[in-house]
Amino acid sequence: MNRKEKVTAEIKFKKGKFARGEKNSITDINGVKAGHFTVNKDVQEASGEKTSIRTGLTAILPYQMDKEMRLFTGMFMLRGKNEITGYEVMDDFCYLNSPLVITNSFNVGRVYNAIISYGFSLSRVEIWPPFVISFNDSYLNDMRKSLMDEKEILNAFHNASSGKVEEGSVGAGLGLRAFGWKGGIGTSSRILYLGHKQFRCGVLVASNYGNQSSLEKPETESNSTRNGDGSLIIIVGVDIPLAPYQIKQIIRSLVSSLHSVNILNNCLDSISCILFSTANPMSMEKEGPSIYEFELTDDSLLAEIILAGTEATREAIFNSLLKATPVEGRLGRKIETIPDNEFKKLLKECGGVYGRKN
Amino acid sequence: MNRKEKVTAEIKFKKGKFARGEKNSITDINGVKAGHFTVNKDVQEASGEKTSIRTGLTAILPYQMDKEMRLFTGMFMLRGKNEITGYEVMDDFCYLNSPLVITNSFNVGRVYNAIISYGFSLSRVEIWPPFVISFNDSYLNDMRKSLMDEKEILNAFHNASSGKVEEGSVGAGLGLRAFGWKGGIGTSSRILYLGHKQFRCGVLVASNYGNQSSLEKPETESNSTRNGDGSLIIIVGVDIPLAPYQIKQIIRSLVSSLHSVNILNNCLDSISCILFSTANPMSMEKEGPSIYEFELTDDSLLAEIILAGTEATREAIFNSLLKATPVEGRLGRKIETIPDNEFKKLLKECGGVYGRKN
Amino acid sequence: MNRKEKVTAEIKFKKGKFARGEKNSITDINGVKAGHFTVNKDVQEASGEKTSIRTGLTAILPYQMDKEMRLFTGMFMLRGKNEITGYEVMDDFCYLNSPLVITNSFNVGRVYNAIISYGFSLSRVEIWPPFVISFNDSYLNDMRKSLMDEKEILNAFHNASSGKVEEGSVGAGLGLRAFGWKGGIGTSSRILYLGHKQFRCGVLVASNYGNQSSLEKPETESNSTRNGDGSLIIIVGVDIPLAPYQIKQIIRSLVSSLHSVNILNNCLDSISCILFSTANPMSMEKEGPSIYEFELTDDSLLAEIILAGTEATREAIFNSLLKATPVEGRLGRKIETIPDNEFKKLLKECGGVYGRKN
Amino acid sequence: MNRKEKVTAEIKFKKGKFARGEKNSITDINGVKAGHFTVNKDVQEASGEKTSIRTGLTAILPYQMDKEMRLFTGMFMLRGKNEITGYEVMDDFCYLNSPLVITNSFNVGRVYNAIISYGFSLSRVEIWPPFVISFNDSYLNDMRKSLMDEKEILNAFHNASSGKVEEGSVGAGLGLRAFGWKGGIGTSSRILYLGHKQFRCGVLVASNYGNQSSLEKPETESNSTRNGDGSLIIIVGVDIPLAPYQIKQIIRSLVSSLHSVNILNNCLDSISCILFSTANPMSMEKEGPSIYEFELTDDSLLAEIILAGTEATREAIFNSLLKATPVEGRLGRKIETIPDNEFKKLLKECGGVYGRKN
Repeated sequence: MNRKEKVTAEIKFKKGKFARGEKNSITDINGVKAGHFTVNKDVQEASGEKTSIRTGLTAILPYQMDKEMRLFTGMFMLRGKNEITGYEVMDDFCYLNSPLVITNSFNVGRVYNAIISYGFSLSRVEIWPPFVISFNDSYLNDMRKSLMDEKEILNAFHNASSGKVEEGSVGAGLGLRAFGWKGGIGTSSRILYLGHKQFRCGVLVASNYGNQSSLEKPETESNSTRNGDGSLIIIVGVDIPLAPYQIKQIIRSLVSSLHSVNILNNCLDSISCILFSTANPMSMEKEGPSIYEFELTDDSLLAEIILAGTEATREAIFNSLLKATPVEGRLGRKIETIPDNEFKKLLKECGGVYGRKN
Repeated sequence: MNRKEKVTAEIKFKKGKFARGEKNSITDINGVKAGHFTVNKDVQEASGEKTSIRTGLTAILPYQMDKEMRLFTGMFMLRGKNEITGYEVMDDFCYLNSPLVITNSFNVGRVYNAIISYGFSLSRVEIWPPFVISFNDSYLNDMRKSLMDEKEILNAFHNASSGKVEEGSVGAGLGLRAFGWKGGIGTSSRILYLGHKQFRCGVLVASNYGNQSSLEKPETESNSTRNGDGSLIIIVGVDIPLAPYQIKQIIRSLVSSLHSVNILNNCLDSISCILFSTANPMSMEKEGPSIYEFELTDDSLLAEIILAGTEATREAIFNSLLKATPVEGRLGRKIETIPDNEFKKLLKECGGVYGRKN
Repeated sequence: MNRKEKVTAEIKFKKGKFARGEKNSITDINGVKAGHFTVNKDVQEASGEKTSIRTGLTAILPYQMDKEMRLFTGMFMLRGKNEITGYEVMDDFCYLNSPLVITNSFNVGRVYNAIISYGFSLSRVEIWPPFVISFNDSYLNDMRKSLMDEKEILNAFHNASSGKVEEGSVGAGLGLRAFGWKGGIGTSSRILYLGHKQFRCGVLVASNYGNQSSLEKPETESNSTRNGDGSLIIIVGVDIPLAPYQIKQIIRSLVSSLHSVNILNNCLDSISCILFSTANPMSMEKEGPSIYEFELTDDSLLAEIILAGTEATREAIFNSLLKATPVEGRLGRKIETIPDNEFKKLLKECGGVYGRKN
Repeated sequence: MNRKEKVTAEIKFKKGKFARGEKNSITDINGVKAGHFTVNKDVQEASGEKTSIRTGLTAILPYQMDKEMRLFTGMFMLRGKNEITGYEVMDDFCYLNSPLVITNSFNVGRVYNAIISYGFSLSRVEIWPPFVISFNDSYLNDMRKSLMDEKEILNAFHNASSGKVEEGSVGAGLGLRAFGWKGGIGTSSRILYLGHKQFRCGVLVASNYGNQSSLEKPETESNSTRNGDGSLIIIVGVDIPLAPYQIKQIIRSLVSSLHSVNILNNCLDSISCILFSTANPMSMEKEGPSIYEFELTDDSLLAEIILAGTEATREAIFNSLLKATPVEGRLGRKIETIPDNEFKKLLKECGGVYGRKN
């Protein structure tokens, strides 16, 4: 019995409304792959002082990337302080044809270039625009020293797998902290039925927020950068046929349903949520049809999708905490895994595992 | 040969890219009906003074209104100073299930109630939300005295027809003026081919703008209301299968393509453009399917739709001027039809009939 | 000791971060008045059957209404299914110069006209656009029979007062229900300090949501209208100098901080939040200045405002439940006040009174 | 008499409404600097084949960059296919504290990193987010071979000057084409009076659009990348005190007033317009005030600003054509400067120099 099972057994987790997918991972969505690249090393500065690199990237490949196709997608940001490339195309044209990569803000340019190279290497006409979502991990990581090479980044794409995603202090998650404890990558999935047909909703989060919420643990030491405020990044994949306007409604409601996120973070941190649907992929080839045949879910079923997404997102956030391992980073700072009793307090504060009455 | 034919023959109108529909009217879209109600009378005020009512409404019925269904729709406003009810539902849920009614701003509440009553009278569960688009016609019309009865409004719905829409100083158009001349209602349509399939795009406009643009005719007399600034209302119907995000792109581009509107109005007037598609109607009945089958036009064809819509909109605006008849209204004000030579000057200024090289 | 004091004493309410205003009411904002008009009567139908009118309106007058001025304002909607007139002007021009009136959806047109008349009666150039926010109270109220007269509506404006707002089953609140119990009007306020200067944040809510959330109380009987889904309307007034972009950030975060709203409502109900600031009023007179002098709060203080607004909104929602009295309405339906033990359960589920650790 | 003077003399340019600034350049705005970096060379491919680099960057420094401050800003995109970093922060927080850099899309990552380095080199806490606006110049330029070094990019920032900006085939403009002729960088400025106070509006454009509009010059050869569609980038600087909601209104109207852009480009190209105001700069230092003193222009004067901006933008576009010199690029393609008679035709088509009656 792992720690999470132990904790959840002790606190008598109530069952949610929806069953988990096989891997309880965003990779339960057919065709979706994920990969990490972790940079964990100490380096000597020119001044002779030692500093710590504790960072990485986490990539979601939403479909077989050598195909010329695009998926409907959408994004909602609350207090949008994360740099996100590709956003304006997503906003106007509502499609995604790039890997989704989470990394720290000083690697945005590097990853951006690597995605373009990746597209060329696949003999595709192009991958455009590259989709990079960034955070600030400067509390543990020396961001100025932690620039990644293109080769390292491409490896993460090539090694991405459809297996269960590794969670905690890995990839983009290495340098993150949440609620004053070690944060990182978490994932979860749910199975739902719409009109007797089975669908899946998978979520991957990077938890890097809530550190200034607790009055007992004031943030005394200034971060090195002004955008030191935290962030929660949520990537949702579904195989449900959705139009872009429905995607927008779902993610706005999903973000607004995360009590743990919004109250506990004291309204200082930014939240970014992206949803893509693998149903209804569109060809990007010139010889594509003029009029496509599509499926579309009736609006009356959106509430069910929002609820499944909320359950999966909450569990993914908790997983990011429970699976994280302690990390010691720059300036000798050490962040511990959340202890069981603190986790139980957190759960109580934020309305239980599923955030609703069972 | 009518005036328009005469004028256009004289100025050697170049042909546009697209052929006109049979009626050159928004009613060329299958299932679309239109109806006017005109109020043209002089009334005695309590003080004994005479005042003039020069107003009305124009209703577009986008589908057979006794059916429980809704259509995808979208709206774009530039300097949005028109009251438009139903807008927030259209913005979030992207659908339309009500008649679209154009009237003056003091009748918005009256028409709103009448649409609700209309829904009941059709034995539908409901028409919701009512969709009313308003303008200010106080230059010629005494808006405070011109409130319509519910019965009069309902008659306009019942008498709506799929024939060629009457243009000029009729219905909502009676009290309007544009570019200092008599404005009003205008309509036009275009036939276009997407992937060898034939589609139609129809437009109806209410032209009530551009009156402050000409340095020779300064607006010296203050209007009775602050929202006295002009407006151009554009309603576009198509039978092309479009998703809401595509509708938004089309109408933003269409509004931005109207040189005559934007430059000649001196950036003071508001423009509202609504587009609905009769393709892919959705049932509103409870027993509707969970997953709909849809068609969707490829993004690469949107430019063609924008061009056809621009041609039809420009011609509809010109029709609203050419078909208008002189009207004398309150305070003894009289607005004349635009003379031929002035119309030719206008055409020249705003880049020709089709707004582009042929 | 009233019921609320008793309940809160029993459940040992933790103190929030902010002190309440003197009246704990939206009228704690200097210059803000509120008024109710309640319609509570049984009428005979043509068929001889009796039906029940249980409705009304609640009006907020944001400033001394005979002054020609406007305030900065903004709105955020989640699942926007409420008709809201004036929205598109608020969205583009970011101002408010009308009373804010909450009423049922079939009275929108009536109230709209009454606000225009009210403007004329004040010898103002005009009040434009009228601002009406609607809900569906058809569970208890026969909406088709409950149309109000202009005189009744105007009386609510004339009788509005700056005293403590009456709460519960009054005005617009008479026919509302929330979480399966009697809902209605609630209000609350908070005092906050920004840079050593004291400001106020006041909230008024109409709670009409969460009725389909509980698995134990399924909604078996269909409502008379499709827009039968519930809604929560939140009006926030502040005397803090804010730019429109800051107002949008605050209300989006505030709505997203309401765990009780979003989780407990099962993602079916709509939420509309409007915020206006009485700081920096702008003249609407023609002789106003070309360049205004303004104050603006630094962005870093927005989190404090969001927290104060969240506290006040949560307390206003709870007040709407605790102050409500039982109402029997159409079809013999009776809705009870929430019992103490159920209220305590609700509080527990939605994370306590203040929604955060104290 | 230069070519432009000659052409304009011949075609008897009518005078616009507004006088030009001293330098007729975006640098007429006090504090604004601009700099180019041009890459013009032929390189040998691994295969032994020669290819051509015809690209560069153009940077606008909106204020003295070593100061910790930010300016109000806003952006509007029509058919947004350009990658623009920093957009989501600009959209939510409405500020700019970075240089604005225009470059081709494969250099976005490089420039992004260089801006971060530039911030560090200035001993500022940070420049965040970097603001890079991209286009596709692959018709003349081999984008895959044309990656710039950080040092080269930083030089452009250090060498930026407040003198008249060089126009035509320079910096980012080297590889651009417009209307089938050589496009590039253009600039212009206007002086306007609001309430007897003098203000300035300066514009810089990169013209890379309209190439598929002419039926006589069909685009037969496929571009190397799908985002091969053209784009027009417009950067507007003003010293007028504006709130972000006013900025949004101005730029939406400005884009919609550009007949030449929208009609002539056949609705295929994207347009991005950014406006920043140097009035009301805000400190980014921690010890900044809680409540700022601001100035704000009355809404009734926005039309004047739109008109001045439209005049300056139209002239900047024409300057980008008239000042451009012929360029021969990859695959032996050569693009000529627009001949006088073609320029006169273009002017006629798009409604004259000032886009309105004089």
